[in-house]
Amino acid sequence: MESISIQEVAPRDGLQIEDQFVPTEQKIDLINRLSDAGVDKIEVTSFVSPKAVPNLKDAEEVMMSINRKKDVTYTALIPNVQGAERAAICKADEVNLVVSVSETHNQKNVRRTVDESFRGFSDIASYLSGTDIAVNGTLATTFGCPFEGNIDEDRVLKLVDHYLELGVMGITLADTTGMANPKQVYKLCRKVLERWPNLPLTLHFHNTRGMGLANVIEGIHAGVRRFDASLGGLGGCPFAPGATGNICTEDLVHMLAFMDYEMRVDLDCLIGVSKYLETILGHEVAGQVIKAGKITDLHPV
Amino acid sequence: MESISIQEVAPRDGLQIEDQFVPTEQKIDLINRLSDAGVDKIEVTSFVSPKAVPNLKDAEEVMMSINRKKDVTYTALIPNVQGAERAAICKADEVNLVVSVSETHNQKNVRRTVDESFRGFSDIASYLSGTDIAVNGTLATTFGCPFEGNIDEDRVLKLVDHYLELGVMGITLADTTGMANPKQVYKLCRKVLERWPNLPLTLHFHNTRGMGLANVIEGIHAGVRRFDASLGGLGGCPFAPGATGNICTEDLVHMLAFMDYEMRVDLDCLIGVSKYLETILGHEVAGQVIKAGKITDLHPV
Repeated sequence: MESISIQEVAPRDGLQIEDQFVPTEQKIDLINRLSDAGVDKIEVTSFVSPKAVPNLKDAEEVMMSINRKKDVTYTALIPNVQGAERAAICKADEVNLVVSVSETHNQKNVRRTVDESFRGFSDIASYLSGTDIAVNGTLATTFGCPFEGNIDEDRVLKLVDHYLELGVMGITLADTTGMANPKQVYKLCRKVLERWPNLPLTLHFHNTRGMGLANVIEGIHAGVRRFDASLGGLGGCPFAPGATGNICTEDLVHMLAFMDYEMRVDLDCLIGVSKYLETILGHEVAGQVIKAGKITDLHPV
Repeated sequence: MESISIQEVAPRDGLQIEDQFVPTEQKIDLINRLSDAGVDKIEVTSFVSPKAVPNLKDAEEVMMSINRKKDVTYTALIPNVQGAERAAICKADEVNLVVSVSETHNQKNVRRTVDESFRGFSDIASYLSGTDIAVNGTLATTFGCPFEGNIDEDRVLKLVDHYLELGVMGITLADTTGMANPKQVYKLCRKVLERWPNLPLTLHFHNTRGMGLANVIEGIHAGVRRFDASLGGLGGCPFAPGATGNICTEDLVHMLAFMDYEMRVDLDCLIGVSKYLETILGHEVAGQVIKAGKITDLHPV
C-alpha cells in the first residue's frame, strides 16, 4: 500500500473568506479535532495584517492555544519577515510562502512583482535560517491565471528553482482558481519530479470547475503523494469571481481510502469534524460525502 | 487527437425524477438544442408505464416530434416488449435495456430477478431482430449496490456475456448510485475490454460522492471512449437517498476539451443549453462550469 499525506487548509484558506468571524475558541477546537482525526499537516492561520484578513486576526492566540500532536505539522502562511517573527514566537513548525506565477495575479494578491516577492522571501529565509522552522514555498496560479490565462511551464520550473535556492524544504503547486486539467497536471508534475525526484511536492487543487479529484488522480499517476484539501470544501479565491472552493478533504480521503491508499487520517473522524464545521459556520458546506454517506454506508432493504 | 463520444441522458435520466412535469414542448425544444449542440447520442425518453414514470408520459409525442439529425443516435429506455413496440412505432434508433447486477437492486427497481429480466430481454431481442433498431444493454449497480455493497467483477462479466448472447450492439456499465472509485473503474474496464476488445463500451457515472470525473479519467486510461452524462448534472436515483446527480455533461466536455480530446459537441452551445435548462426547471442545476465559467473566460485586470 502506498501512503498519501493529507494536508488540511480549512482553518486558514477556508476561514479567511467566510462572511462571519469564527470565534477563536471554535477555531482552536476545530484544529484540535483535525489533529485528532489524523491529518498530516494543518495550515493553522496566517500571520498577515489583521486589516487585510480580519478573520484571522487571532493568529497568535490560535497558534499558541491548540494542542500540538507530534505527528502533525502545524504550518502558517506568512507574507514577510514580520510574519516570520510572529510565527517564530508562536513556534510554528513551518511557514508557508506564497507567490503567484502570474505577474498580474501576484500584483493583485500582494501588490508586488514576482521579483519583489522573492526578494522578500530571501529576507525571510535569512531570518529563519538559525531556527528549526521549516519553509514551504507555494506557487499560486501554477496551472492558469484568471487574468493572464495560460501559464508557461518553464516559468513554473524557474520559480521552483528560485524557491529551492532559498532553501525551502518543500514546494506546493497551487491551482488557485481551479483552472488545472488532469492532463496538464500529469505533464507538469512529471517535469518537476524528473528534475527534482526527491522534492517534497504538494498539489493544492480547487474544485471550481469540477476537476479537483480528477486532477488528484493524475497527480498520483505523476508521483505526487501530498495533497492540500479543505474540510467541507471550504475556501475559494476573492480574485476569481464565481469560484467554488478547495477540494474537499473528506471527499478526497473517502476516494483514496477506497482506492486502498494508506493515510494516517481516520475517515469517520474527519466526516464528524466536517459536520461539526457546519455547526460552527451555520451553513452547509460543499462536501458530498457528508451528504451522501460513504459508499460502505448501505441502505436497509 | 483521440475522439470521445458524449451521450446525453438528461431528457430521460434527469427529467424522470424532477418534482415538476416538464411540458412536452419544452422537452422537445431541449432535445433539439442538444442535437444542435452536437452530442453523439440522446436518451430521449423511456417507454415505460406512465403510472410508473408520470414525468415521461409523453414519450411518443416527444420521440415523434423532435428534429432528428443524422449524426445523433436517438435512444430510449424500454422495460419490455410493449416498450419495444412503442419505440419501433416512434422509430427510435436504439433501445436501451437495464438490469441491475445486484439482485436486490433489480428487485427494488423492476420487481424481477436478474434471470427474469434477461428472459424478458430475450423476447425483446426476438421482437426487434427484424428491425433496424439497435439494442444497448445497461448494467446498473455495476460498481456497487446501495443495498448489497460490493459487486463481484466476475458476475459483471457474466452478465455482459448474457447481453452479448442476445445480440446487443453495445454495453453500458452504470454506477447507478455513485459508488465507483477510479482504481476500480480502471480494473473492471480493463477486464471487460481485454475480453471484448471491440465492444462499444459506455460508462455511466454519477457524481454522488464527488468521484465522477475522476472515474472518467480512469475509464479513458482503460480505453473507454463513450460516456453518458446529464446536462447540468441532472438526475440521481430514487433508491439512493441523499444522492446527487449524474456527472454533468458540460463539466465533462469542458474537462475533456482542455485535455485536447476531440468531440463533436460544441462546448459553448452546450453551456447555453444548460442555462436554458435552468429556466425550464425553475431551479439551479449542479453543474459548476455554468457558475464559474470556462477556464478560458478570463477576468479583466
